[in-house]
Amino acid sequence: MKTEILTVLKEAPGFVSGQELCGRLGVSRTAVWKVIKQLEEEGYQIEAVRNKGYRLAEAADVITEAEIGSRLRSKWMGRHLVYFPETDSTNIQAKRLGEEGAPEGTLVVAERQTAGKGRRGRTWSSPAGTSIYMSFLLRPNIPPRCAPMVTLIAGLAGAKAVNQVTGLNARIKWPNDLVVNGKKICGILTEMSAEMEGIHYIVTGIGINVNQKEFPEEIRDKATSLLLEGGRCFNRSQLIAGVMEWFEPYVERFLETKDLSLLKEDYEEMLANLNQEVQVLDPAGEYHGVCQGIDKDGQLLVERGDGSLSRVQSGEVSVRGIYGYV
Amino acid sequence: MKTEILTVLKEAPGFVSGQELCGRLGVSRTAVWKVIKQLEEEGYQIEAVRNKGYRLAEAADVITEAEIGSRLRSKWMGRHLVYFPETDSTNIQAKRLGEEGAPEGTLVVAERQTAGKGRRGRTWSSPAGTSIYMSFLLRPNIPPRCAPMVTLIAGLAGAKAVNQVTGLNARIKWPNDLVVNGKKICGILTEMSAEMEGIHYIVTGIGINVNQKEFPEEIRDKATSLLLEGGRCFNRSQLIAGVMEWFEPYVERFLETKDLSLLKEDYEEMLANLNQEVQVLDPAGEYHGVCQGIDKDGQLLVERGDGSLSRVQSGEVSVRGIYGYV
Repeated sequence: MKTEILTVLKEAPGFVSGQELCGRLGVSRTAVWKVIKQLEEEGYQIEAVRNKGYRLAEAADVITEAEIGSRLRSKWMGRHLVYFPETDSTNIQAKRLGEEGAPEGTLVVAERQTAGKGRRGRTWSSPAGTSIYMSFLLRPNIPPRCAPMVTLIAGLAGAKAVNQVTGLNARIKWPNDLVVNGKKICGILTEMSAEMEGIHYIVTGIGINVNQKEFPEEIRDKATSLLLEGGRCFNRSQLIAGVMEWFEPYVERFLETKDLSLLKEDYEEMLANLNQEVQVLDPAGEYHGVCQGIDKDGQLLVERGDGSLSRVQSGEVSVRGIYGYV
Repeated sequence: MKTEILTVLKEAPGFVSGQELCGRLGVSRTAVWKVIKQLEEEGYQIEAVRNKGYRLAEAADVITEAEIGSRLRSKWMGRHLVYFPETDSTNIQAKRLGEEGAPEGTLVVAERQTAGKGRRGRTWSSPAGTSIYMSFLLRPNIPPRCAPMVTLIAGLAGAKAVNQVTGLNARIKWPNDLVVNGKKICGILTEMSAEMEGIHYIVTGIGINVNQKEFPEEIRDKATSLLLEGGRCFNRSQLIAGVMEWFEPYVERFLETKDLSLLKEDYEEMLANLNQEVQVLDPAGEYHGVCQGIDKDGQLLVERGDGSLSRVQSGEVSVRGIYGYV
């Protein structure tokens, strides 16, 4: 009944009277009132005015299974959706679902994580209400060495979705962050379970700072949110659906060739620091060079002062621009 | 008390009277008799002769925690030992222990597996009494792309241990089988949980055919056991301990360089088909060549008819000798 009342409220041009809701759903006023309360608890802002009825405030930034599902236009990515108001981490849950045989493209979304993780086991602060915490499951027939490419594809899809929904200019900080105006808005963590012959499953987790109004002092110059950069709130469910819709055709093209040859151009178009000087923090020796894009395996190409081309393997070194954080 | 009675029986030159066992352990005859029955159920053959007492039959091929532990001379490999009379699969259990934070070198051994797996999800027949089913856990600080090398190191350690214990001439069929006289006696399955930046854990499972007296008709020309090739029974606990002892220094050398450069020579010495013609079943096109050993990344080097050198990546193609199964 919740989904039905939500749909009626969404489709109505203005107020819907309690009487009309009762009539259309064949339930009592008390039942309607209870559902309205539930929706409010989930985060919907509903105006209730005597003699007029109920009206859904526009652009309610609510994440629920129904809300994401109603916006999703993909064929298979995210069609199996598992939503948690709170969980340890969406990657942990997606890995568990992977072990249990959940289908390709399964999407896990949480409003809040109690044990969110970034790369190398770092903590990923995950309060409720303003961020996206999403992970999806793939079972690609590719060699394990190709798994890191999925992170790049997720980054590309994330940048496209953010830019489409917000009108901002998000860029990819190779290999797995997104930045807006030089500050981080998104991190991506890909994990896999594999044997030599193939991958059991891949889980890619994406965290996006959407509607945070401020950040702690110590990370304020490195992190930002879409709200802070765009000057308004954005709907998280729409962003989640957008990532799925952009990711699906990209990953299909990737699986055709098992490399990034068909996505290289799109990726480089979104790449921060392209044709700019970068610093490569290689444990074997730091060096500078000009970022020349990526090769078909997703390695970053850096032209060094002597004209030689270095290929930077993702996961083993850090790369940053010379000017600013990116 | 079981371990104590077992130790007394093992150390005694001949029979030990029930009275002596009662006296040394301060328990009743009935209690001793019960433990003797338990040991027999575990597979120990114990002679019980009136007026003489109990005697342990030599070379009882029993796998228990106490039995393996008493033979193990390694520093850290296998020092944390988890034994199951029966389990789904030792790899599944080792992965579970990996998720739960079990220490580096944790060894899982089972007498019987109900869901044993080979590569690519193939079933690995796992009856009780004659085979070794063992898996160990590593948490190496290496890039995920280096994980397959652990399989090669396990193969090398397995071959060394088998040859030392049995006097047979086991060889490595690159990348992850062991063969004796051209027939398979051992398979190795390495699985990992990883992110781009590093490995959470690696689990390597080893199955060895030890005391099978026969094989089904349809695999008789491909599979054999140490008993069939050596003409006598071998002690499985001794073999398990041997694999751990050989593996430990090899993996330590591997971790020094994060490649196989220090193990290449030892590996090639044990390699079946070295300097012989092999057939490479590459999906991109089958070809013949002469096996020239491995490179430091564990790829097989095959010299082709035109003099060019192909590097065969483990896990993506099959290689076999021209003559026979190996």
